[in-house]
Amino acid sequence: MKINIEALLDVAHLQNSYVQAIDDDKLESWPNFFTDQCLYKLSPRENYDENLPACLIMCDSKAMLEDRIVSYRNANIYNCHFTRHIVGMPRITASNGETISAETSYAIFQTQLNGETSVFQVGRYLDTIVNDHGQLKFKEKICVFDTYRVHRLLATPV
Amino acid sequence: MKINIEALLDVAHLQNSYVQAIDDDKLESWPNFFTDQCLYKLSPRENYDENLPACLIMCDSKAMLEDRIVSYRNANIYNCHFTRHIVGMPRITASNGETISAETSYAIFQTQLNGETSVFQVGRYLDTIVNDHGQLKFKEKICVFDTYRVHRLLATPV
Amino acid sequence: MKINIEALLDVAHLQNSYVQAIDDDKLESWPNFFTDQCLYKLSPRENYDENLPACLIMCDSKAMLEDRIVSYRNANIYNCHFTRHIVGMPRITASNGETISAETSYAIFQTQLNGETSVFQVGRYLDTIVNDHGQLKFKEKICVFDTYRVHRLLATPV
Repeated sequence: MKINIEALLDVAHLQNSYVQAIDDDKLESWPNFFTDQCLYKLSPRENYDENLPACLIMCDSKAMLEDRIVSYRNANIYNCHFTRHIVGMPRITASNGETISAETSYAIFQTQLNGETSVFQVGRYLDTIVNDHGQLKFKEKICVFDTYRVHRLLATPV
Repeated sequence: MKINIEALLDVAHLQNSYVQAIDDDKLESWPNFFTDQCLYKLSPRENYDENLPACLIMCDSKAMLEDRIVSYRNANIYNCHFTRHIVGMPRITASNGETISAETSYAIFQTQLNGETSVFQVGRYLDTIVNDHGQLKFKEKICVFDTYRVHRLLATPV
Repeated sequence: MKINIEALLDVAHLQNSYVQAIDDDKLESWPNFFTDQCLYKLSPRENYDENLPACLIMCDSKAMLEDRIVSYRNANIYNCHFTRHIVGMPRITASNGETISAETSYAIFQTQLNGETSVFQVGRYLDTIVNDHGQLKFKEKICVFDTYRVHRLLATPV
């Protein structure tokens, strides 16, 4: 497959804006990276590989994503922390005029209130991306995580 | 904002050359990534977010950066280690004909004399980049670090 | 050196496909990233820097790489794990009409059967890349690793 440079860098920019918005605690803007009808799913790698449906989080509309943030800000009890994503370059796995599929590896670090940083989760994003009124958005974001022992709460988005 | 592909990759290359020079122990070339009048600052995220001025390191000229390396090579006492930066793609946050502003997430790993590697610091670079006689250079590099417990000395540059 | 955007992104794509193939356990395709006559070497940074020849793994043909995978699938005894590479952008260090040399930093995380993830190894790839019948392939991949205490087996490729 010949690389479409512009598409690749557009997807990289979308991914980068997405993770930096989370890391910069701009969580209210997080749902806007998705289309109204969307799928956001956190699936342990073991289950994903065997096609088992159980997952940790599953939201199938932007409204559910908004709800998660309202809940995070107002109701949830969790460990306060900073989050930091390091993502590799996306690899575009399929593309037609309408959608782009991409796979991107990620590592998420958390810093606790004592100032210590540790690896929170590594995995890969399996994204389906569409052009929504001139802006690239996630129609699907499946986060397949290797780290299936989740020590702390999944409070902030992956 | 439409992505300027060439500017983005030029900034990515600058960032990459910068961190690889540090990791490859070419520290004498480190100050050359900056303009003569520059600002290099290491600010804990807590302070940065609340606009508090206290920071761990602050150098406001290339000469001060050179001084740090001379001191590192000749006077400082610190734990010998290897350093390894993994940086994401920069996100260009502003750009005019003269300067480019970019935000880039980083993770720094240190390997001690026993051969063990651990996360040393994660954070983000907030850079202001200018064209200095045909070469991109940092006019400002603010390293806002999440990891505010600094276990070991900040011997090598971030 | 003026950046050749297309070459840079082609190398980034090669690197990305390489590490994702490993992480996705598509190890049978791993040798295909190399030319028939090739060099794959894992060298501790200490030895590499002092030009000492001892290394952990050295394969000098694609057939040896294939052998490693057959051995991994059928004979080796090792800790089952998931692997995850996060690589930075490559930095092209030399290029002529025939070969491209590039340096790329990597961090490899391993997730054990208990679901816990830790840093396995950080280092840098020193690659020599050629066009082999229309496809970019590694003619040489020297993995210079900082993490010279290897706690667990080097079962899966770096």
